Amino acid sequence: MTSLNADRHDRLRLIRTPNIGPVAYRQLLARFGTAGRALEALPDLAARGGNRRFKPCDRHSVDAEIAQVERLCAHYLFLGEADYPALLGQAEGAPPVLIARGNAGLGVERCVAIVGARNASAAACRFARELAHALQEAGIVVVSGLARGIDTAAHQGAGIARTVAVIGSGIDVNFPPENADLQERVAREGLLLTELPPGAEPLARHFPARNRIIAWMSLGTVVVEAAPRSGSLLTARLAGEEGREVMAVPGFPADPRAHGCNALIRDGATLVQSAQDVVEAIASLDPRALRSGQRDFLSQPPSDDLGEAERQRVTGLLSLSPVAVDELIRQSGLAPANVQTALLELEIAGRLQRHAGGRVSLA
Amino acid sequence: MTSLNADRHDRLRLIRTPNIGPVAYRQLLARFGTAGRALEALPDLAARGGNRRFKPCDRHSVDAEIAQVERLCAHYLFLGEADYPALLGQAEGAPPVLIARGNAGLGVERCVAIVGARNASAAACRFARELAHALQEAGIVVVSGLARGIDTAAHQGAGIARTVAVIGSGIDVNFPPENADLQERVAREGLLLTELPPGAEPLARHFPARNRIIAWMSLGTVVVEAAPRSGSLLTARLAGEEGREVMAVPGFPADPRAHGCNALIRDGATLVQSAQDVVEAIASLDPRALRSGQRDFLSQPPSDDLGEAERQRVTGLLSLSPVAVDELIRQSGLAPANVQTALLELEIAGRLQRHAGGRVSLA
Repeated sequence: MTSLNADRHDRLRLIRTPNIGPVAYRQLLARFGTAGRALEALPDLAARGGNRRFKPCDRHSVDAEIAQVERLCAHYLFLGEADYPALLGQAEGAPPVLIARGNAGLGVERCVAIVGARNASAAACRFARELAHALQEAGIVVVSGLARGIDTAAHQGAGIARTVAVIGSGIDVNFPPENADLQERVAREGLLLTELPPGAEPLARHFPARNRIIAWMSLGTVVVEAAPRSGSLLTARLAGEEGREVMAVPGFPADPRAHGCNALIRDGATLVQSAQDVVEAIASLDPRALRSGQRDFLSQPPSDDLGEAERQRVTGLLSLSPVAVDELIRQSGLAPANVQTALLELEIAGRLQRHAGGRVSLA
Repeated sequence: MTSLNADRHDRLRLIRTPNIGPVAYRQLLARFGTAGRALEALPDLAARGGNRRFKPCDRHSVDAEIAQVERLCAHYLFLGEADYPALLGQAEGAPPVLIARGNAGLGVERCVAIVGARNASAAACRFARELAHALQEAGIVVVSGLARGIDTAAHQGAGIARTVAVIGSGIDVNFPPENADLQERVAREGLLLTELPPGAEPLARHFPARNRIIAWMSLGTVVVEAAPRSGSLLTARLAGEEGREVMAVPGFPADPRAHGCNALIRDGATLVQSAQDVVEAIASLDPRALRSGQRDFLSQPPSDDLGEAERQRVTGLLSLSPVAVDELIRQSGLAPANVQTALLELEIAGRLQRHAGGRVSLA
């Protein structure tokens, strides 16, 4: 039925289980050693978190997904394996599994993201196309999101065989519709990636998660024309939080599409006028030094001996407002591993939500 | 014949004397107390510097200039007097005298310079006009250079009664010709300033000196569209060297007219998208704190006892390559005042040239 070995099958089942996000996934593997043992332990953990009816994802739906992925000529990239995008794997919030079509080797090369407005000016699209072309000539793989405007220009400029498109839908769902041909070409000649299972619709809430893959698999992100509060600025912020280079192309302030990039530059982003500027900016980054300190802390294996009083103390400190995990540790007076365990149990039970910057709230 | 009192007459004569630049002028006043006594001493100083035929500017040509200035309804602003532009007077290289038409009170208010390309885009001219207008509404006087393009837009946007135009020709010479009407209106309602005597032509070499007046009389300089190596960038550099705020309006890199401003921003200039940005940037400047350290050193009165051996030692260290005065002091092993005296004598004799940054070379 499936070409995945047993461990990969378990991993996929674990990540497709409700409430298991990237952080919980890593912590469960750290604590139980294998995905199979984690799956066995899940009902108990969920019960301690307050949910006695918890069930892991069943084997059959995972089998069905695997069969569909194979029919689509796609394949899985598992976190920790050699063909998983190299820099993405260094991020704490990296998706445990991706679905890919095309040349997975591109994700292991030096990548730079080019993102920007869907309604970008003709001049900006042309600039993005030329920038992508020059970066490709400098040996860099160009990553973008297959959206209209800047994204499309970036993919085209880089040349399809040297570009990675990360989408916010299933690998078999074309979005936007007018880019269906481009999506198919990227899948055949370049690399098409998604975190979502086949058939997933391009819902608005999928795109921030898509943006983090673009930002985190790249040494740096270049923003070309972006209005304030746009998704492109979110991508830039995610890049910066992960220690990647944030770059922006300035624009004349009379055009509101310039305000986002100009604000980034004012906040310290590298001003980019040419591919040379990008090459110089990322040259100073040492990929091995990109791991953030927080990640090591978060990946500590949670402890397995947690009393009910301690669990209550952590739960009592939580509310609907996100709070930093280290703040919870300080205020609870408990050992970090115990706090992590309480949070993991609550998360699996569906009572906890994780936020950017290592913060958590009640769900 | 003249409405200037004797001391002002002497000052004007001193500054109109060949080879007497702003630095020599200040040092002579510091050493001799009055311009009259400095004029008497000049032939001796020049002789020690190697020029035995030196003559100060004669009284009659100064009388003729004064008469002409009066006929043109212009007046003199002397460094150190109350109507001299306040911030300009704090700069070491401030011109000892300016010729003005209009409301000298504007130069004593909070000034901001707006400069940029003569061949600016329509969008940039419009931006400059709106920026100047908003600054004027914030109580700021807008200074510019009456050139085509951005300068003209800045003067017009600020409103003629709240603008200062600094020109690189005599007060009676219209340049550029198409701005003759604007120049006359600024002279009647705003403030028109020049360092040059009546009749002086708008020669290319006059404009860097004009630019320093624009930069130094202003709390900050905003550059709107400027190509690399343009006069506007020189103005920005002069502003920065004097501790004033350097501001630039970003532009899309596809237009070469944006490259100068973008380079300024990359080098640390404040990115400006609105008048509010300018107001915030200059709010942090304390005008009383703008005096640079070097100036105090340079205005030390030179000593009057200098032996021939010491003079030779300084002369021997000079070449056609500019060198910092403090480097000369270190290498000569002489007292600073003695080195200043030797340099002053050489300058008056026409054998020394002063450069930016307190550097000197043989002329």
